[in-house]
Amino acid sequence: MIKLPGLIDPHVHVREPGQTHKEDWNTATQAALAGGFTAILAMPNTNPPIFDRDTLNLGLGAAKLKARCDYAQFLGAGPQNASKVAHLAKESAGLKMYLDSTFGELRLDDMTLWQSHFEHFPKNAPIVLHAESRTMAAGILFAQLYDRPVHIAHISLKEEIFLIKKAKERGIKVTCEVAPHHLFLTKSDIPAIVGAGLSPALTGRGEVRPRLTVQADVDALWDNLDVIDCFATDHAPHTLEEKDSDTPPPGFPGLETALPLLLTAVDEGRLTLDDIIKKMHTNPKKIFNLPEQKETWVEVDENATYKLRASNMHSRCGWTPFEGMQVKGRVTRVVLRGKEAYKNGNVLAKKGFGKNLRRWDTNHDNKA
Amino acid sequence: MIKLPGLIDPHVHVREPGQTHKEDWNTATQAALAGGFTAILAMPNTNPPIFDRDTLNLGLGAAKLKARCDYAQFLGAGPQNASKVAHLAKESAGLKMYLDSTFGELRLDDMTLWQSHFEHFPKNAPIVLHAESRTMAAGILFAQLYDRPVHIAHISLKEEIFLIKKAKERGIKVTCEVAPHHLFLTKSDIPAIVGAGLSPALTGRGEVRPRLTVQADVDALWDNLDVIDCFATDHAPHTLEEKDSDTPPPGFPGLETALPLLLTAVDEGRLTLDDIIKKMHTNPKKIFNLPEQKETWVEVDENATYKLRASNMHSRCGWTPFEGMQVKGRVTRVVLRGKEAYKNGNVLAKKGFGKNLRRWDTNHDNKA
Repeated sequence: MIKLPGLIDPHVHVREPGQTHKEDWNTATQAALAGGFTAILAMPNTNPPIFDRDTLNLGLGAAKLKARCDYAQFLGAGPQNASKVAHLAKESAGLKMYLDSTFGELRLDDMTLWQSHFEHFPKNAPIVLHAESRTMAAGILFAQLYDRPVHIAHISLKEEIFLIKKAKERGIKVTCEVAPHHLFLTKSDIPAIVGAGLSPALTGRGEVRPRLTVQADVDALWDNLDVIDCFATDHAPHTLEEKDSDTPPPGFPGLETALPLLLTAVDEGRLTLDDIIKKMHTNPKKIFNLPEQKETWVEVDENATYKLRASNMHSRCGWTPFEGMQVKGRVTRVVLRGKEAYKNGNVLAKKGFGKNLRRWDTNHDNKA
Repeated sequence: MIKLPGLIDPHVHVREPGQTHKEDWNTATQAALAGGFTAILAMPNTNPPIFDRDTLNLGLGAAKLKARCDYAQFLGAGPQNASKVAHLAKESAGLKMYLDSTFGELRLDDMTLWQSHFEHFPKNAPIVLHAESRTMAAGILFAQLYDRPVHIAHISLKEEIFLIKKAKERGIKVTCEVAPHHLFLTKSDIPAIVGAGLSPALTGRGEVRPRLTVQADVDALWDNLDVIDCFATDHAPHTLEEKDSDTPPPGFPGLETALPLLLTAVDEGRLTLDDIIKKMHTNPKKIFNLPEQKETWVEVDENATYKLRASNMHSRCGWTPFEGMQVKGRVTRVVLRGKEAYKNGNVLAKKGFGKNLRRWDTNHDNKA
């Protein structure tokens, strides 16, 4: 038996409010505990997005009632809300900025719109960027110009890891995360993910943003593990019906597959347990300034060999791009703040047991 | 009469080799002298592009025979030629990197391809970037990471001038140029540029890259004149037949209209003569490390009021987007290295009078 600290996933799409047919605070936090995560940071691109006092209250209200593990909620940067979200910073996981296009109300096409957020958001509160390729480089320049840390979500490309390495060497305050699907899958796996039963034209199950890449990109990530600060799932559940439609939304679930995949890599000698602890506990805790979860740990049977099966998982979405993949290493028990929260396939923590890791101002004053 | 120093245009598409039906070293340098420019820096995206020893010799060979004003030739950065162009740096105006897509053999989509040029090209030799919007930000990050100067070509957007201002304040070694068409035209001028005689669907005469912008962008440039290091024409001649076709190439001629337009702005109090001298002589001379042109000056009749007419111009392309525009200020005489090179509409400098401002290694050894 291996004992790990409670893992932290800084990148989870809980889908509540607005899309609870895909997932909600109840099922997302069940999936988290089953995956060995005792804390998740929730993304703000819900419906409505979490981007002002009212929507933050809406999201945190649902979380308070339903969450089974600990959490914090990101705020979304919009074209007009820089001052508002800055006032809510302490109550949030941080600010998420979507700097590549196609994200509705959180769209920030013009760099003058980035400027107001970098000017307003407190320097000691996290800013996370969805920013791919040269947009990522632009985001790193903003970190340099405004002399503040930024965290780059789900990097996937050789050019990205190379540039982050170079920026770190030059003292720019940039950190980054990588999602397991960008470490364990390439675009050549898409036919297998789509599966034999479907028309080859229906490739929706392979759609994810950033896209699956080529082996040279995957190799560059593995060759630069020391540059990767966090493993984050970018858990983005959609139903199979949606994924197999003519307009499939991009995204993979990932909370219940990340740790088994990474433990398998440890077994294969590609990674160490220390890497896992550092990138899934120590670093996210530090980057996002999260409090210690006392009497909290994860027990793993490192010898359990089995195939990943969505039918054994807790996410509401009901599928995984890793279906049938052979892994070695299983979460057997999770203790969260002294209570047994998960054991042998069963989530024991009740709805509402999860705590907000930030101080939510329940006076709900409408200053912001 | 106003006397100006010989103007330097750091951004000219001479079109030779390969597209001499649009322009060549003979006509481009005639247009330059008529416009008050005694030195031009030639862009490398010719056919073939100037991007190795053989093509540099081809370009400089034509220039030596035909140029009537002084010049230097840029090298183009390609995916495979970083070491080659680095060896040719001293013989060139500098390195031009096309960082936005759609530029054929000089296309550099992946930032790992930028890396090799930043590593190889001598730090004291100029690098010019075609890089718009967030790509420009990425280019500025490279200047910071590699601790070397970069010059940004033809900026046009509010977000660009704001970011360059911020980068300069933070000590990053970035300079920039603005083309007159981005100071004096907006996209709402396109119908007038296209003209009444053509089908409204044929908007090719309005096509230019970067595109014409909106008034807010133009205003941001005028409001930040102190951030603009150079005025550069981006003289990009195409024939009217090409511009009025179904697949119009982007680009405006500009050598013969820049100074009259800017002198008109001086007359209107929007600019000073010192601004013109600084941004069209002093700054480009310094940024591109160009030698003094002795006994060289431009005489201007600051009171001449007239309409810009392509029929009075020397460029082979035969049209101007500023056709019929009322201006105040006319180049009457240009003296280049003690010789009368232009007077009252007539180019007097002979073909071959123009000198290469860099030391061309005429041994043509094939080290590179």
